[in-house]
Amino acid sequence: MQVYDAPLRDMRFVLNELHNDDGFGDLPAFEEFTPDLTDAILEEASKFCREVLLPLNRSGDEEGCTHENGAVRTPKGFREAYDQFTEAGWAALASDPEWGGQGLPEAVNKLVEEMICSANLSFSLYPGLTHGGTTAIEGHGSDELKQKWLPKMVSGEWAGTMCLTEPHCGTDLGMLRTKAEPQEDGSFKITGSKIFISSGDHDLTPNIVHLVLARMPDAPKGVKGISLFLVPKFLPNADFEPGDANGVNCAAIEHKMGLKASATCQMNFDGSTGWLVGEPNKGMAAMFTMMNTERVSVGIQGLGVGEAAYQSAVWYAKDRVQGRSLSGTKYPEKAADPIIVHPDVRRMLMTMRAYNEGCRMLSAWVSRALDAQKHSPDADVRAKAEDFTALMTPVVKALFTDLASESANLAVQVYGGHGYIRESGVEQYARDARICQIYEGTNGIQALDLVGRKMGAHFGRNLRSFFHPVSEFIEESKGDGPMEKMIEGLERAFGALQLSTATIAQKGLADPEEAGAAATDYLRLMGLVAMGYCFAKATKVAGLQLFFGTEDKAFYEAKIKTATFYFERILPQATASFLAIKSGKKSMMALADDEF
Amino acid sequence: MQVYDAPLRDMRFVLNELHNDDGFGDLPAFEEFTPDLTDAILEEASKFCREVLLPLNRSGDEEGCTHENGAVRTPKGFREAYDQFTEAGWAALASDPEWGGQGLPEAVNKLVEEMICSANLSFSLYPGLTHGGTTAIEGHGSDELKQKWLPKMVSGEWAGTMCLTEPHCGTDLGMLRTKAEPQEDGSFKITGSKIFISSGDHDLTPNIVHLVLARMPDAPKGVKGISLFLVPKFLPNADFEPGDANGVNCAAIEHKMGLKASATCQMNFDGSTGWLVGEPNKGMAAMFTMMNTERVSVGIQGLGVGEAAYQSAVWYAKDRVQGRSLSGTKYPEKAADPIIVHPDVRRMLMTMRAYNEGCRMLSAWVSRALDAQKHSPDADVRAKAEDFTALMTPVVKALFTDLASESANLAVQVYGGHGYIRESGVEQYARDARICQIYEGTNGIQALDLVGRKMGAHFGRNLRSFFHPVSEFIEESKGDGPMEKMIEGLERAFGALQLSTATIAQKGLADPEEAGAAATDYLRLMGLVAMGYCFAKATKVAGLQLFFGTEDKAFYEAKIKTATFYFERILPQATASFLAIKSGKKSMMALADDEF
Repeated sequence: MQVYDAPLRDMRFVLNELHNDDGFGDLPAFEEFTPDLTDAILEEASKFCREVLLPLNRSGDEEGCTHENGAVRTPKGFREAYDQFTEAGWAALASDPEWGGQGLPEAVNKLVEEMICSANLSFSLYPGLTHGGTTAIEGHGSDELKQKWLPKMVSGEWAGTMCLTEPHCGTDLGMLRTKAEPQEDGSFKITGSKIFISSGDHDLTPNIVHLVLARMPDAPKGVKGISLFLVPKFLPNADFEPGDANGVNCAAIEHKMGLKASATCQMNFDGSTGWLVGEPNKGMAAMFTMMNTERVSVGIQGLGVGEAAYQSAVWYAKDRVQGRSLSGTKYPEKAADPIIVHPDVRRMLMTMRAYNEGCRMLSAWVSRALDAQKHSPDADVRAKAEDFTALMTPVVKALFTDLASESANLAVQVYGGHGYIRESGVEQYARDARICQIYEGTNGIQALDLVGRKMGAHFGRNLRSFFHPVSEFIEESKGDGPMEKMIEGLERAFGALQLSTATIAQKGLADPEEAGAAATDYLRLMGLVAMGYCFAKATKVAGLQLFFGTEDKAFYEAKIKTATFYFERILPQATASFLAIKSGKKSMMALADDEF
Repeated sequence: MQVYDAPLRDMRFVLNELHNDDGFGDLPAFEEFTPDLTDAILEEASKFCREVLLPLNRSGDEEGCTHENGAVRTPKGFREAYDQFTEAGWAALASDPEWGGQGLPEAVNKLVEEMICSANLSFSLYPGLTHGGTTAIEGHGSDELKQKWLPKMVSGEWAGTMCLTEPHCGTDLGMLRTKAEPQEDGSFKITGSKIFISSGDHDLTPNIVHLVLARMPDAPKGVKGISLFLVPKFLPNADFEPGDANGVNCAAIEHKMGLKASATCQMNFDGSTGWLVGEPNKGMAAMFTMMNTERVSVGIQGLGVGEAAYQSAVWYAKDRVQGRSLSGTKYPEKAADPIIVHPDVRRMLMTMRAYNEGCRMLSAWVSRALDAQKHSPDADVRAKAEDFTALMTPVVKALFTDLASESANLAVQVYGGHGYIRESGVEQYARDARICQIYEGTNGIQALDLVGRKMGAHFGRNLRSFFHPVSEFIEESKGDGPMEKMIEGLERAFGALQLSTATIAQKGLADPEEAGAAATDYLRLMGLVAMGYCFAKATKVAGLQLFFGTEDKAFYEAKIKTATFYFERILPQATASFLAIKSGKKSMMALADDEF
């Protein structure tokens, strides 16, 4: 059964208690967002997700989207839910008040995003893609474009998409062929085909604003000749309401492994009118603005599904009775003990729990940096925050989504045979989560971004934004009795990460394939250290609360237990990653292409 | 695209070259199965799988089984394929000639099984379950039952099933409720409901023979009161052809994550006539005869899917062009290099390859033991072989299927966005493979079987059947120059396994939850060592071939390269498993049930 209640206590912990000393500060811009107010927002969001979005998750998966006579229909209930969503102002939550947004800090907004993704991942893509689009327009569009288009998009009245991929090019956008021909009025005629366009067409909004990568005539070859265009489904009329059709058509929707209530469209642009966003031939920069926002959000998607899978597994593990505890009957009043008593079921539940809590803590840290990078009054803090988010964006995207698939599959395993049946709802989590490892740049591409771009950038400045706080924490926590073993474990894993960094930097300089061969293991190693650091900090915070006395003893005790599990059972994976990195590229590249 | 060609060269390697010194000997019973003959069988099977079964794999997934008016229809083409399958004698391959079988050694048969599962996992279940049924009847049934029923089942004319699970009991069969009331003629009336019955009903054969677990009146409680019954769908008439309906009905079929062309049925038995198989109240023993056969076969299912996923991924990695090699353009004549040049794609392909080759080598070893345990003229060898298969059955089942899911998901990842689209065919492998980790005892149950039953059995005799050859091999290979690093790696991992064994044995004696908490990591560790041993042996065999000169240089060189990859990139996982085992149960069991 799909069970979900937002983990509000843990969310308040990562928002208000864990990262106060991270140097990103309390931002004056967000003074009004007091814990009382953010609490209320989280409560409301939780209610909306549980009552409106969750009940449509399985029915949406069963029904899927349909494509008839060129139009896409979302599953039953999605349109009404979307209306409620925008009417309640959820769509505008994190956007700039200048365009009608509510200016919520990312630190809070990402928690709401997590809830939405837990409740209904497919649904989350409709507002999610719109938000990616508004970010690109805000960051790169002319004032005219902003003033015209952003209010409609920020409110969610019109939706948005990102049109990048073509049949022959996904990762390698240099090969893209969609054309943009300049017109006398300053607009462009866009012609070409795009695939895998999430929310490319649907019935939720009266208009859809596509952000399309295309080439102008005589543009330089490769990625340096790509520009970004705003291309609406319907051209606005004089009142800026949807007017004439703009030659934008959905040719088909994809039949996918999961995420079935999200329409994935093949889009044709047939001389469609569009307007340039940003500078000519600088489309990749604008695209990366969307993409980076989206990459963190895809990480959050993973976390969201992981949490829902965990809760659904816990529910079943308490409900299903089978066998007796190895240490003697625990529930004599029942025909058998609930399977939560069995160590191997515990192993699965605790693993999921540790993944989710670890990712949530890391995500809260990154979200605070996202806020500081935009809103800190201190230029140094802004720069440091930017370094940190640049470094952590690929980690959040790839780590969270890899762990999400693992969690979803563990949930299926907890259900046993019943988990393989669609009716249980858990196999949907495994199918839905699977896409998060792929879109917005596969996780392999994230790893390459980390070692190839982020690791060496500014002579290692990005790295230092993460390494410094970790090594400071280790130094100041040494000799802290109850945490001794944890700090030792963290120090060992951190040492492996530092050594790996040096190895990759050295080898990779002479041979980029060495960096490529190490990339995925290096990203995982960094993720393991980052979660370990968060768990150790959390243990310290919890320990202090327990020492000084708290009404919330159970929460802090459970936090320390989960942290201990993480250190004993999950962090040891760091050794395997380290050894794999150390071995270098040789065995990976030894077979000739035709020997496969 | 689903691509599959049986890896015949590698199959001949594991069959004829790798395990000749394993002590299980060349069996006189199989003298007639010369390499020439087995080659011809493997060639023929390969052709049948590629030409008949593979083309029905994706269409079977799309169409699925249907349940109308109480009858199950398999997807288009399945019936014709099944007819061809039985007519060509594939169904009878491994069965005893006494009942019309062809008496093929398991060592060869398991390779054919692998091919069938690669080509069409859903299809494989129809003959697979029948074979499980014949094994139980052969092992426990009366002569009358055998002579009546086996010929029909061995030929595949009639199919079979195993009816164990009920809605409230899967793992914990002690709770089962299906009743068996004795009749005056010695038969029984069987009444009850079973779920998750693979091939419970279908249109491939005119009759289906169910093997049903049920309780006689006044039977002892729990598993000691369960008996096994043979219950046909139609009662045979005087000519032993299907006669009157026997009150066996399929109430519904399950809608599953994958394996959609295999009918998973809810079966009702309504006073159906059945005959006791084996002794009253000894049904669990008979059930385990089926189950153990099936468990190894489910491992092979995993290997089959893993191989198909690997081949499909290799095909795509050579076909899809995207980006340029980090070490400079490799295919200047193409718009971009095929993605097989990228180290991270290599990582995924090599991982799948190493998993498949490792599992195939281990499976070949176990299959030789299965043959020796039945057919060796030497009682000591038979006993040793039985020890070894008992130990390895849970390892083969759980390890192979865990790795299969990993491989299938890696294949999806190699395809990127295209892999998430059903049309590509690879996401089907991920959905199909997923069930193998669950049915015939979840992989957690396999791990418990290993630590709780197999590890300590006969004062460690089962273990010694594996530990002895490994330690002998390490001793005799030390100082073998080119293999030095490999042997060191194997020795380290084997040391970790021995230490873990001692730890679990010691702690588990005082507290069975300690063994439970270590089980899954211990099984993985043993699997990693077993594959490592096989890869090291293979390297030795290949090295000798290369040293003395061989026409098949490319094969042996590739084998050594894959083995090297295994030792450098995969075996290091053993350390993580070892550390997890060492940490004990405490952090796993620390949260109270209601703290979740």
